[in-house]
Amino acid sequence: MVPLHLFQSALGLKDLERFYLEVRQTSEALGEPLSDADATVQSMPDASPAKWHLAHTTWFFEAMVLSRHLEGYKPFDEKFTFLFNSYYETMGARQPRPRRGMVTRPALDDIYAYRAYVDQAVARLLTSRPTRDAAELIELGCHHEQQHQELLLTDILHLFAQNPIRPSYRAPAPVSAETAALPALSFTDFEGGIVEIGHGGAGFAFDSEGPRHRVLTEPFRLADRLVTNAEWMEFIEDGGYTTPLLWLSEGWTKALAEGWSRPLYWETRDGQHWTMTLRGFQSLDPTTPVAHVSYFEADAFATWSGKRLPSEAEWEVAAQSLDVDGNFLDLNRLSPEPASPRKVGVQQMFGDVWEWTRSPFSPYPRFRAVAGAVGEYNGKFMSGQFVLRGGSCATPPGHVRASYRNFFPAHTRWQFAGLRLADDA
Amino acid sequence: MVPLHLFQSALGLKDLERFYLEVRQTSEALGEPLSDADATVQSMPDASPAKWHLAHTTWFFEAMVLSRHLEGYKPFDEKFTFLFNSYYETMGARQPRPRRGMVTRPALDDIYAYRAYVDQAVARLLTSRPTRDAAELIELGCHHEQQHQELLLTDILHLFAQNPIRPSYRAPAPVSAETAALPALSFTDFEGGIVEIGHGGAGFAFDSEGPRHRVLTEPFRLADRLVTNAEWMEFIEDGGYTTPLLWLSEGWTKALAEGWSRPLYWETRDGQHWTMTLRGFQSLDPTTPVAHVSYFEADAFATWSGKRLPSEAEWEVAAQSLDVDGNFLDLNRLSPEPASPRKVGVQQMFGDVWEWTRSPFSPYPRFRAVAGAVGEYNGKFMSGQFVLRGGSCATPPGHVRASYRNFFPAHTRWQFAGLRLADDA
Amino acid sequence: MVPLHLFQSALGLKDLERFYLEVRQTSEALGEPLSDADATVQSMPDASPAKWHLAHTTWFFEAMVLSRHLEGYKPFDEKFTFLFNSYYETMGARQPRPRRGMVTRPALDDIYAYRAYVDQAVARLLTSRPTRDAAELIELGCHHEQQHQELLLTDILHLFAQNPIRPSYRAPAPVSAETAALPALSFTDFEGGIVEIGHGGAGFAFDSEGPRHRVLTEPFRLADRLVTNAEWMEFIEDGGYTTPLLWLSEGWTKALAEGWSRPLYWETRDGQHWTMTLRGFQSLDPTTPVAHVSYFEADAFATWSGKRLPSEAEWEVAAQSLDVDGNFLDLNRLSPEPASPRKVGVQQMFGDVWEWTRSPFSPYPRFRAVAGAVGEYNGKFMSGQFVLRGGSCATPPGHVRASYRNFFPAHTRWQFAGLRLADDA
Amino acid sequence: MVPLHLFQSALGLKDLERFYLEVRQTSEALGEPLSDADATVQSMPDASPAKWHLAHTTWFFEAMVLSRHLEGYKPFDEKFTFLFNSYYETMGARQPRPRRGMVTRPALDDIYAYRAYVDQAVARLLTSRPTRDAAELIELGCHHEQQHQELLLTDILHLFAQNPIRPSYRAPAPVSAETAALPALSFTDFEGGIVEIGHGGAGFAFDSEGPRHRVLTEPFRLADRLVTNAEWMEFIEDGGYTTPLLWLSEGWTKALAEGWSRPLYWETRDGQHWTMTLRGFQSLDPTTPVAHVSYFEADAFATWSGKRLPSEAEWEVAAQSLDVDGNFLDLNRLSPEPASPRKVGVQQMFGDVWEWTRSPFSPYPRFRAVAGAVGEYNGKFMSGQFVLRGGSCATPPGHVRASYRNFFPAHTRWQFAGLRLADDA
Repeated sequence: MVPLHLFQSALGLKDLERFYLEVRQTSEALGEPLSDADATVQSMPDASPAKWHLAHTTWFFEAMVLSRHLEGYKPFDEKFTFLFNSYYETMGARQPRPRRGMVTRPALDDIYAYRAYVDQAVARLLTSRPTRDAAELIELGCHHEQQHQELLLTDILHLFAQNPIRPSYRAPAPVSAETAALPALSFTDFEGGIVEIGHGGAGFAFDSEGPRHRVLTEPFRLADRLVTNAEWMEFIEDGGYTTPLLWLSEGWTKALAEGWSRPLYWETRDGQHWTMTLRGFQSLDPTTPVAHVSYFEADAFATWSGKRLPSEAEWEVAAQSLDVDGNFLDLNRLSPEPASPRKVGVQQMFGDVWEWTRSPFSPYPRFRAVAGAVGEYNGKFMSGQFVLRGGSCATPPGHVRASYRNFFPAHTRWQFAGLRLADDA
Repeated sequence: MVPLHLFQSALGLKDLERFYLEVRQTSEALGEPLSDADATVQSMPDASPAKWHLAHTTWFFEAMVLSRHLEGYKPFDEKFTFLFNSYYETMGARQPRPRRGMVTRPALDDIYAYRAYVDQAVARLLTSRPTRDAAELIELGCHHEQQHQELLLTDILHLFAQNPIRPSYRAPAPVSAETAALPALSFTDFEGGIVEIGHGGAGFAFDSEGPRHRVLTEPFRLADRLVTNAEWMEFIEDGGYTTPLLWLSEGWTKALAEGWSRPLYWETRDGQHWTMTLRGFQSLDPTTPVAHVSYFEADAFATWSGKRLPSEAEWEVAAQSLDVDGNFLDLNRLSPEPASPRKVGVQQMFGDVWEWTRSPFSPYPRFRAVAGAVGEYNGKFMSGQFVLRGGSCATPPGHVRASYRNFFPAHTRWQFAGLRLADDA
Repeated sequence: MVPLHLFQSALGLKDLERFYLEVRQTSEALGEPLSDADATVQSMPDASPAKWHLAHTTWFFEAMVLSRHLEGYKPFDEKFTFLFNSYYETMGARQPRPRRGMVTRPALDDIYAYRAYVDQAVARLLTSRPTRDAAELIELGCHHEQQHQELLLTDILHLFAQNPIRPSYRAPAPVSAETAALPALSFTDFEGGIVEIGHGGAGFAFDSEGPRHRVLTEPFRLADRLVTNAEWMEFIEDGGYTTPLLWLSEGWTKALAEGWSRPLYWETRDGQHWTMTLRGFQSLDPTTPVAHVSYFEADAFATWSGKRLPSEAEWEVAAQSLDVDGNFLDLNRLSPEPASPRKVGVQQMFGDVWEWTRSPFSPYPRFRAVAGAVGEYNGKFMSGQFVLRGGSCATPPGHVRASYRNFFPAHTRWQFAGLRLADDA
Repeated sequence: MVPLHLFQSALGLKDLERFYLEVRQTSEALGEPLSDADATVQSMPDASPAKWHLAHTTWFFEAMVLSRHLEGYKPFDEKFTFLFNSYYETMGARQPRPRRGMVTRPALDDIYAYRAYVDQAVARLLTSRPTRDAAELIELGCHHEQQHQELLLTDILHLFAQNPIRPSYRAPAPVSAETAALPALSFTDFEGGIVEIGHGGAGFAFDSEGPRHRVLTEPFRLADRLVTNAEWMEFIEDGGYTTPLLWLSEGWTKALAEGWSRPLYWETRDGQHWTMTLRGFQSLDPTTPVAHVSYFEADAFATWSGKRLPSEAEWEVAAQSLDVDGNFLDLNRLSPEPASPRKVGVQQMFGDVWEWTRSPFSPYPRFRAVAGAVGEYNGKFMSGQFVLRGGSCATPPGHVRASYRNFFPAHTRWQFAGLRLADDA
């Protein structure tokens, strides 16, 4: 049996308590602009209601931690076990994913009461000498909830984009008087060879980020910045969406079937380009990194550019060479505008948009899933998905690191996903 | 061109005003138990959100009456025209039906404000000598809204039945100490011949209820009461859902594909029979008329019984012979329990459950659709549906009459629909 | 129990033998132009392979007649019972309809051997004093096979129309030098009243054609001829396929989903109109009755014309007044060209194209399905279909009569179906 | 522009001529047991008719070689260009893949005539000093046709398995008196490190097999033989198909949706296990390698075994250490029975069943697709598929090598695909 602490956990109890509180409050702050109805509707099977995110992350603490590690704990409501399990086969039956939006009751306020109840119990547990297993599970639960914070935002954006009146989740950003000139695209060379990737040091990491291991890479080059909306416009104007030879076969079939002709939330009205954002329907900024494109589109763009997407090892090698601190975004940034000031060299690596890599999501050498429910966390998704790196403007600050592996199916478009070009050196 | 008043309208302005107010208040009373989330979610493409019903019925007055007949009228919100048109091609583009549940905003309170705004405008119009056309359209709008009152209830029941916690829309009925003994099934003979059916007298009727015309019927017999849950149980136990020879071919295919084995909302837990109702999850009452069965099931039951379903002409002939007043239900009845006291002869004709007839929904001789948008009201649905007669426990009192033709596709189950047996004499 | 002879049968044994031989030889003549591959492929779930038609009609004699009425009869091949049952639940399991085209073996030649084997056995039975039941079933089997003769042709046309090389089933007709001028459209008046329809006389009829019964019709008018290709072209040019108000709601949804913009087999190449026929890809003849339109299209056309479709009773009343002999087509006519010479009055009633009526396919008063397998023949299809009358150029001569009720779902287009206009008098 | 000869080609003209003839004759020998109908029907969208395989491989020579490199060449039939293009966007419009089975004409004999016509033209070209490009394309066409030879067999097996009479493609194998005892499962250790994989030497290879490049592998172990039917039976009996924790999430969803409970062609009749093969319906041999399992099933089996699937690099390293000659199968072997005698060490590497690896089909470092139509050969399929190695009993002898990369989507079951276990050392 594989020990649980493959999920690398390192916080002391005080830090853990602080972390827990901060994460939980952040989630509720994210829910604040939402009405009960906003938080209830499911806009497509891949998305979940905000209410569900707020409840499921709470269920995680209840089912994985409190029921097992806090003596005498009574669940808030027995029915919530069924309602708010996501995909843990180990944890019994559950509301089918495409029907999460049928649950108009409990109401959003009931969910907040559920959260408060669980928060009190977790506080009790933290002050009563929890076992290392319990503490690690709480820390895992916090990281789990941070993942759902981003999903809550992507899912609300998708929902609001279905509404003909195009509501705003946040107030629109003040319009800046001038648009920054787009820096020319340049590439940084990396020499390749045997490198180490994967999480191996201190601090938390998900199981799929390890084990740390050696990888052999050929010499390569990586673009210093992300692909922008202006560049994507060129791709469109040059027939990018109508030239099958640029596309993977599977991608072309999908693009035809779904009628793709631009990124997911772009629209053209009276010759002007617009895009739906969490700050409402906005004019398209040409210097912003392109977002809401699928792997198939990203790959076609790279082919059109005469370049390619980086592998995840290439990306991680480049990220390891960075001091990432300056790149994190502040809490309120919700659209992928360029941050500043930039350092020379490879930039925009963290917190702008998730970057599609050419690497399918596969287990690292000697990876083994943890036993029990937590073992279902990542391992069972290792087919049919591609790895994304770097985090987006919707990712909680502090949640991303060089070894972090996000993953989605190649046709996925509703995430804040864009791309960076790479090439053989 | 066909004059509008094919929709037979006869109310004086005072009565019309009273009728309008009563209908509008009833709708809001129906919305009262619902949260914003309850009122927003769409549980299937055939159902609509309660919020949509409340808004669409208001849009009807705004688009069909106020915009044309009240000088200087300004729409409450231009976007509502798109959001709340149902199926009127004449009235321009609209939110696609299966996506009505995406509209989390406007909120339920916004819809109530919309209603108040329109109510004030209609009041103004009614006190300013409206044309006959305008008055008739207002009356039509009231009847239209009454139809949606029933749909609001059927749709909420369907939504709540999808929720694993099985919420109640209304407080559960007090459990009666004893169950009434089931009256034996008997039949009343009718001699047939040439009769008149269809609306021809005073008072409002929908266009499809006329013209009144002669029909030739053969001698027939009609059951004195509706088929009950207890009788349906016998049908199930005798293999009703597993014997293809009892079924129409189309129905059998549907039943297999959907896994039908009992009426829509029935469940069995620990050997007990239960059913989902607007008063919550309840034990099944054997003497209550069976409800939530499709035409296909009703027809199979009739075949199994060695009988058949009545034609709509047969039903109407029988209904014409009745003093229907005693049979109407009070406002709060929401489950098809037997009313009492009963008169001898054909009973339960009005307000228990809609009764499937064997008659496809076809135009009566010399029927012509009204010109313009109102002409889309019924005529364009005259294929692929069967007529139901009599009204249900969810139908507003006063809304049903002997000539009233309801219609649904043969596989429909979420309406309060049951059956009465008939036979050749 | 309902006696079998509801299927009205009246032939003496000599006549029956002659009829049997003629029908069986006709089927094989129809198969003659087909390769093994042509006869095997199923072009859509609604169509069947020609081989299947040739085998299934033979299975009907084997399973319904020989196995029960010819002592010592041994089936040709036990597996054929499974392969060639169509929809008779009473007769056990069967190859699912949409997978009939998977049966590449037995080969077409094996099916011909099967036919010969069964023909010999039927001949033996006919010369050995068969019971009345057996004789009636043989006659029913002949009429059944005649129905499949037409289906074989409609299904082959559909298959060949899917093939980009557009093969011909028969040699193209010689091109006539001039096109006959289109006779002006005129109407004949009928006075209505109580009439009798349904089969009641001598000779064979299917169960659904009876019982003969009285019907009340209002005065009406019937067009003297069918709607032509030229008139359909006007409908198209006047926006017939882009004006939702002309359409039944269900039809408009279907038309949009399937992209209908003209009859099923029409094509336009270089500004010329063409159509696929059993004689290959041909230039469209404007004077020919339009064919391969659905009920939805026929109804929209009638609405556009300010007229309506006739009811089946109206059609039958008109047909009863005719001497139909002159209208029958010779054996080799496979496209709906106008026959001549025509008599004055209502013409083209038999053997041009099936005429959609506005009547849903419902049971006649006092209709009861026959007990046993034969009872599944028509009764179980009495939902979701409309009645067509009159027969087409692909219907075997002698197979159609005034009381004959064909039926198909309203979206069906691959049959030789067109329309005749009617109106209230 | 990438030169064509990335497809490594090395044959002299004499050898090429011999190779061409042998390949073409082999295809026709494979078609020999098929009727016109057998060769025409398409059993599912993923499969193609045998006739199509025979024609498409011929079209490849016509369109890619003769039209460009043989002066004065006239295509056999212009329409074939549309009918028999597979997926080359560069080469124009084509018959949609799911509708390949509609083409009953041209007949199988016409296809043979097409083949003869093209063979003569290729012979002319080969004796007239073809350019190096032309010669390389001919060699590519031969390897292309060999790939389709295997597909023809897998597709025919799938078609025959849909037929309730379960036809045999070949005569059944003589039943051997005894079943060989199953050798115990043992593992061979490999030490890992930097190795070279990919095609780099003499002889033909497909573009995706290169460039040859260095790979870093960790120490690993590889099973000496394939997983057998007997072992698969244990997996089933131990709940392999009903334990979601053994499965990838995507795989479990698929398995539930499709009702998987055993390999594709297995059946149980009267407690005995059977399987459909090219030699007909046969009793299951427990010592034969399991075949017709998807990646998802193979991965679940490996998880159940406490092992894993090998990566393609691991497999290739092991294969490089082998003298493969003894492992090839003779031409008539069409079911995956164990060959003998076996050498010690890793066995059954070539020609038994394709072995699923855990490696998604991705480009090797510095891979670039060839320019033009031939560039669509492999590159555009590099998403959503897993690599299989080693060849099967249906692969033409001589067609497989250590660097050969076959690929299919993870749910694919109709190929001759099984698995070999691996583990970390």
